[in-house]
Amino acid sequence: MEARRLCVLSGGVGGARFLHGLVHEVPATEVTAIVNVGDDFEPYGLHVAPDLDTVLYTLAGLSDDVRGWGVTGDTPRALEQARRFGDEGWFWLGDLDLGLHLARAGHLRAGLSLSAATAALAQAVGVEVALLPASDDPVRTMLTVDDGEIDFQTYFVRRQHRDAVHAVRFAGAATARPGPGVLEAIAGAETILLAPSNPIISLAPILAVPGIRSALAARRTSVVAVSPIVGGTAFKGPAADMLRSLGHEVSPAGVAGLLADVAGTLLIDTADAEHAAGVAAAGLRAVGTGLVMDGHAGRRRLARAALAAAPS
Amino acid sequence: MEARRLCVLSGGVGGARFLHGLVHEVPATEVTAIVNVGDDFEPYGLHVAPDLDTVLYTLAGLSDDVRGWGVTGDTPRALEQARRFGDEGWFWLGDLDLGLHLARAGHLRAGLSLSAATAALAQAVGVEVALLPASDDPVRTMLTVDDGEIDFQTYFVRRQHRDAVHAVRFAGAATARPGPGVLEAIAGAETILLAPSNPIISLAPILAVPGIRSALAARRTSVVAVSPIVGGTAFKGPAADMLRSLGHEVSPAGVAGLLADVAGTLLIDTADAEHAAGVAAAGLRAVGTGLVMDGHAGRRRLARAALAAAPS
Repeated sequence: MEARRLCVLSGGVGGARFLHGLVHEVPATEVTAIVNVGDDFEPYGLHVAPDLDTVLYTLAGLSDDVRGWGVTGDTPRALEQARRFGDEGWFWLGDLDLGLHLARAGHLRAGLSLSAATAALAQAVGVEVALLPASDDPVRTMLTVDDGEIDFQTYFVRRQHRDAVHAVRFAGAATARPGPGVLEAIAGAETILLAPSNPIISLAPILAVPGIRSALAARRTSVVAVSPIVGGTAFKGPAADMLRSLGHEVSPAGVAGLLADVAGTLLIDTADAEHAAGVAAAGLRAVGTGLVMDGHAGRRRLARAALAAAPS
Repeated sequence: MEARRLCVLSGGVGGARFLHGLVHEVPATEVTAIVNVGDDFEPYGLHVAPDLDTVLYTLAGLSDDVRGWGVTGDTPRALEQARRFGDEGWFWLGDLDLGLHLARAGHLRAGLSLSAATAALAQAVGVEVALLPASDDPVRTMLTVDDGEIDFQTYFVRRQHRDAVHAVRFAGAATARPGPGVLEAIAGAETILLAPSNPIISLAPILAVPGIRSALAARRTSVVAVSPIVGGTAFKGPAADMLRSLGHEVSPAGVAGLLADVAGTLLIDTADAEHAAGVAAAGLRAVGTGLVMDGHAGRRRLARAALAAAPS
C-alpha cells in the first residue's frame, strides 16, 4: 500500500480534534493516523482502546463534544446493572461504548489483529483516515506514584490523576513491533504531524516501540509537532502536572526538549512567544500561531497552521 | 455447610418458574438449586450462563414474564451499536444482561470460580436459594444435526432450533467435577425435585457430570420428577421434537424412560392419565395433577403438588 501524504501521531481527545480539523482541510484518504495504545486495557476481558476509540468516535462524528469524551447520547444501563449485581464499576463504560467493545472483541476473538480489527471498525462507520495502532503487541503505560507503580487507567480514571507521577514506563514496549504500515507511513509521508497530545503518556508510548522513534528521526525535518502546552497549562488532562513532576519545564520549551530528536518544527501559541528562544535552543524551529481549538473552526485553523508550518 | 431440606435440579425457564413457585411455598433458605451449565458459552469472551441467569432473574423478581426470557425492561443499545460497527450480533444480549455478564466477568477474572461468582451475584440481589452450577468445569452441550455437530446456542438461538437433532454430547462432562456442594445437597436433602426441564438438554448435562447421576440414583425413592411433556407437547422449547428425533416417545412415559434410574416418582398431567401405565412400566410411580403453570398461582400449585407427591 502506498504511503499517504500526511501522517499524524496522536493520543486521545486533543489528537482526535486535531485530526478532525485536518480531514476538513485535506481529503481523509490522504491521512494516516498512528495512535497510542499505551492506555489500552481489558476490563471484564474486553479490549478497550481509549485513544483509538476517541479518534474513531471523533472522525465518525459520534463523539460527545459537550462531555468531552465518549459517544453522544450514551447511557450507563449495563454499568448500573453490573453495580446492582455487586460490581464496583469504577471504569465508566456506556452502553454504546460497550457496543464498540463487543464488536472489537468479536474481531479479536475471530483471530484478527488489533490493526485489522481497527480497520474493520473504522470502515463500518465510514472513517477513511487510515487508523493504525502504534503496535499490535501490548504496550502498557505504567506510572510510579507515591505508593508504587499503577497502570494508566488506575491513575487516570480510578484515582482521577491526582497522584504525582515520579516515573513512567511502557511495559511490553521493548519487545513490541510497530503495527503493520506504521514505519511505511512515517517513511513515505510528505509531512508528519505530532498532534497536540501529552508528550509523556500519549506520544512517548508510540515512540517507545522499537523502530518508530528512529523512523521519525530520519524524517525529522518533515516533522511538525504541535505544543499541547499553552500559557503554562495543558489543553486537557494531566500533561502540565506530569511535565512538572518529572522535572520538565511546563512550556513549549519543555515539550521541545522531549521531542528534539524527532521533530524539526514546533508550533507554539502566540501567547508563548517568550518561549521561542527555548524551543530554538532545543534545536527546533518555533512557529507561532493560535493553538486553542475553539469549536470546529478552531480545529481547522490549527490543522491549516500545522500544514503551513511544514517545510516545503 | 448443612444440606438444605429441598434440592431441585433445573434448566432454564421451566425450572426457574417451578423454583419461583417453590420459594413461595417454603422458605427459600430451605432450597438448593443445581442448575445446568451445558448451555453456557462465551460470546465476546463474556461468560454467559443462560440457565443460571434465568433462575437468578426469576428468583430476584427481575424476569420478563411477557417476553418469556431475559430481564424486564431490557434494551439492545449496546447490541445495536455493535451491529453498527459491523458485528453480526446474532445472540441477543440486552444492556441489562450485559450488566450481569460484566459483573460475572469481574468475579471470574478476579479468580472466583463460577460457583463463587454465582453465589456473589445471587447475594447481591437478595436471592436466598442456594444456586449451584452443576459444575465449575466447562460442560458444553453439542448437537449433531444434518450438517454436522453444532454448539447449543448455534442450534437454539442462531438456527432457532429448526434442525432435527440426531445425537447429543456433553463436551467436557467426562472430566468435569460436580460443583462444590452439589453431591452434598443431593445426599442430604429430604426430597429432591427434578424441575419440568428438558430431560435431554437441561437435566441430562447435569446428570452427565460424573458422580451426580449415581448420587441421585442412591436417593431414587426421594426423587420426584415433573414431566415437561403435557398432552404430547412441551411447556416450552424443543423438548418434544428432540424426544421424537432421538427415538423417544413424546409423553410422560418417554420422559420416565430417560429418568428411570434416578427418579422414583413422576408427576404427570391429568390429561396424560393414559400414559400412567407406561410410566409405571418404566419403574416410576406416576402421580397425576395439573402441570400447567398459569401465572404465579400455577407455579405455586405445581410446587405444592410436587412436594405432596414426595414419599414421606
